[in-house]
Amino acid sequence: MKLNHNGVTEAKGFYACGRYTGLKNKRRDLAIVYSEVPAKFAGVFTTNRVKAAPVIRNISLREKGCDIQAIVINSGNANACTGAQGILNNQEMAETTAKVFNINANSVLTASTGVIGVQLPIKTIIEGIEKSHKFLSDDRQGAIDASAAIMTTDTVPKEVSAQFIIDDKVINIGGMAKGSGMIHPNMATMLTFITTDLNISRDLLQKALSSSTETSYNMISVDGDTSTNDMVCVLANGLAGNSEITEENSDYIKFKEVLDTINKELAMMIVKDGEGATKLLEVIVSGAKTDNDAKLMCKSILTSSLVKTAFFGEDANWGRIMCAIGYSGAELDPSTVSLRLQSRYGSIRLLENGVPLNFNEEIASEILKAYTIDIIVDLLDGEGQSKGWGCDMSYEYVRINGDYRS
Amino acid sequence: MKLNHNGVTEAKGFYACGRYTGLKNKRRDLAIVYSEVPAKFAGVFTTNRVKAAPVIRNISLREKGCDIQAIVINSGNANACTGAQGILNNQEMAETTAKVFNINANSVLTASTGVIGVQLPIKTIIEGIEKSHKFLSDDRQGAIDASAAIMTTDTVPKEVSAQFIIDDKVINIGGMAKGSGMIHPNMATMLTFITTDLNISRDLLQKALSSSTETSYNMISVDGDTSTNDMVCVLANGLAGNSEITEENSDYIKFKEVLDTINKELAMMIVKDGEGATKLLEVIVSGAKTDNDAKLMCKSILTSSLVKTAFFGEDANWGRIMCAIGYSGAELDPSTVSLRLQSRYGSIRLLENGVPLNFNEEIASEILKAYTIDIIVDLLDGEGQSKGWGCDMSYEYVRINGDYRS
Repeated sequence: MKLNHNGVTEAKGFYACGRYTGLKNKRRDLAIVYSEVPAKFAGVFTTNRVKAAPVIRNISLREKGCDIQAIVINSGNANACTGAQGILNNQEMAETTAKVFNINANSVLTASTGVIGVQLPIKTIIEGIEKSHKFLSDDRQGAIDASAAIMTTDTVPKEVSAQFIIDDKVINIGGMAKGSGMIHPNMATMLTFITTDLNISRDLLQKALSSSTETSYNMISVDGDTSTNDMVCVLANGLAGNSEITEENSDYIKFKEVLDTINKELAMMIVKDGEGATKLLEVIVSGAKTDNDAKLMCKSILTSSLVKTAFFGEDANWGRIMCAIGYSGAELDPSTVSLRLQSRYGSIRLLENGVPLNFNEEIASEILKAYTIDIIVDLLDGEGQSKGWGCDMSYEYVRINGDYRS
Repeated sequence: MKLNHNGVTEAKGFYACGRYTGLKNKRRDLAIVYSEVPAKFAGVFTTNRVKAAPVIRNISLREKGCDIQAIVINSGNANACTGAQGILNNQEMAETTAKVFNINANSVLTASTGVIGVQLPIKTIIEGIEKSHKFLSDDRQGAIDASAAIMTTDTVPKEVSAQFIIDDKVINIGGMAKGSGMIHPNMATMLTFITTDLNISRDLLQKALSSSTETSYNMISVDGDTSTNDMVCVLANGLAGNSEITEENSDYIKFKEVLDTINKELAMMIVKDGEGATKLLEVIVSGAKTDNDAKLMCKSILTSSLVKTAFFGEDANWGRIMCAIGYSGAELDPSTVSLRLQSRYGSIRLLENGVPLNFNEEIASEILKAYTIDIIVDLLDGEGQSKGWGCDMSYEYVRINGDYRS
């Protein structure tokens, strides 16, 4: 399977647009995705106790098992921590969208991203929706504009697509994501929307998505916890014409593999576009007692400010990695830990079974000049393994976040 | 009770020195604290699975119930992640100290702080110990030098002392601490040593210390987890002459109050000297379901990079505070949360029972110009409360940690 960088209009029967309505300064801020027929809908949402209004509503639509025909997304305002008024504004956003398409409001998903705690300028949004839907298109431009309209501090739009064959039918899948601060879990910033013309049951679509997020988005998050607005939604409208996938057969597995690839690619794009990031860190833990122990170590390393700043400084200060492993909550015996750094410029062993090795600082420094750096942790404790991605922490991170609202 | 800023020689029979031996560049790097008689010893140590050699040894001395007569501390090297060689080096450090004082090695505590994963230059340390002990003094200078010798990235030494009366006897207590990165839990940096001439049983000394750390050092830590080297040790040599405290009577309570004050003061000094810190943040949570829920929220706010950078930017971006509350793991209903910021320049309400208030950005901006800022969270969920301290996150934090080893 070859990945392309088309987006949400790649699959049959999906339209999109992205427009400037005035929520953000001179940039597109409203996106609509529309399917010409109702689509099966699966979603994964933030576990934060403080949930944005659109998250609360979408969860309820998923619980009701609603099919979905449109998604409306605004950037510039998260509609989170906005109380009862926020709930009403969000409902109005959905109802306006339903009205222009002449569909039921329960067929409309909503999403918002941006600053928390400010009421949506709902009139601007309503006017925007009423004007925008005329610009929907099922070609590349529609997807490009939509992926631009959902950006906040993102520096690049994020789109991925693929084709695969099931039942001799070409299946199309395409997605867009936004997120620049998901590396830290407390920004209201991670949104992914994936559309496909696959014919699949709702239960299996949800099952595939839930499992797929575990090894993609959840491995770039700080602690599995997500923000007030995070969501990953998949719409499957069935227009590819394959017979419905209703069992975990080889067709399901094929789809799941594609979905995993798409999600991992979008997750990587998010982490590469991490606020102020200058390096991509890949952590690979193996030989842990359990997969969960490996995951805990992996995330602990990726979320340590001290590890992140050391890589920004291109400093092989591996003691901080060990320290992060130690307080990760994972079961481990320090004397079984080996540690290695690796990049396109070479590989260097730093610790072997808990004993530090003498290493050449110059070689280490050369390796750390690369953009992508692998942090490889091996234990002799079992079969548990995990892989995750993160980025370094730079001056730019502080600048962006010291002054985000202005 | 009045606090003074004398240190570990304030109590009767305690001597100290701090010397340059060559571990650090042109700065004092070796401290010794000595009691002329064996002292009861209580200690609290890191919960990190990766424990530095001196931590492992001190825990074992505490478990054996050893009385302690000397503490030897080096800065510049943490002796953590150093395998069997590190254990041997640490033992040699203790034995050399025992030899010069003609005491048993089990009467000597050790501590190390600095970079992780590099073997101690043990010869330098041994020579240092052999030379240094002659410079011990029981006056102010000894304490000053010792408190300077345990610093790493600290910008100021940290000493606190007090007098109080028990049994008509004047009891003296004094302590020193080091730590500049304890705000983030994964630095090998938090050390506190307290000496007192109080006569008290070992069990009660330990009980008082364990309880006291909960509301002081553990409330400036990121997540209750501590580094590979963290320790708080109290020596009580009984030379004040009061009859031994063996019950939780009013004398015990009086001592406990003094110890709490000393620990809180040292903890505040650490957080104020946080790496790159420009502001002191005090978080006060009340009305939570339980004290533990309040604590979770408190720590989650204090450890959020996004909250910390917002305060560095003097930006009243309170949505990030709510977001941190939401993913803290605490039980809460967002609609019961009220939020207020306060400083010497005024007070401003931002959120009331989950509903955002319109607030004057200019007034908020004025309030945030202060050095000390209170973040006050009220819930209507119960009686749970907690208080904690942290600092903002600045460019300087990134600079210091991107280049710590050089």
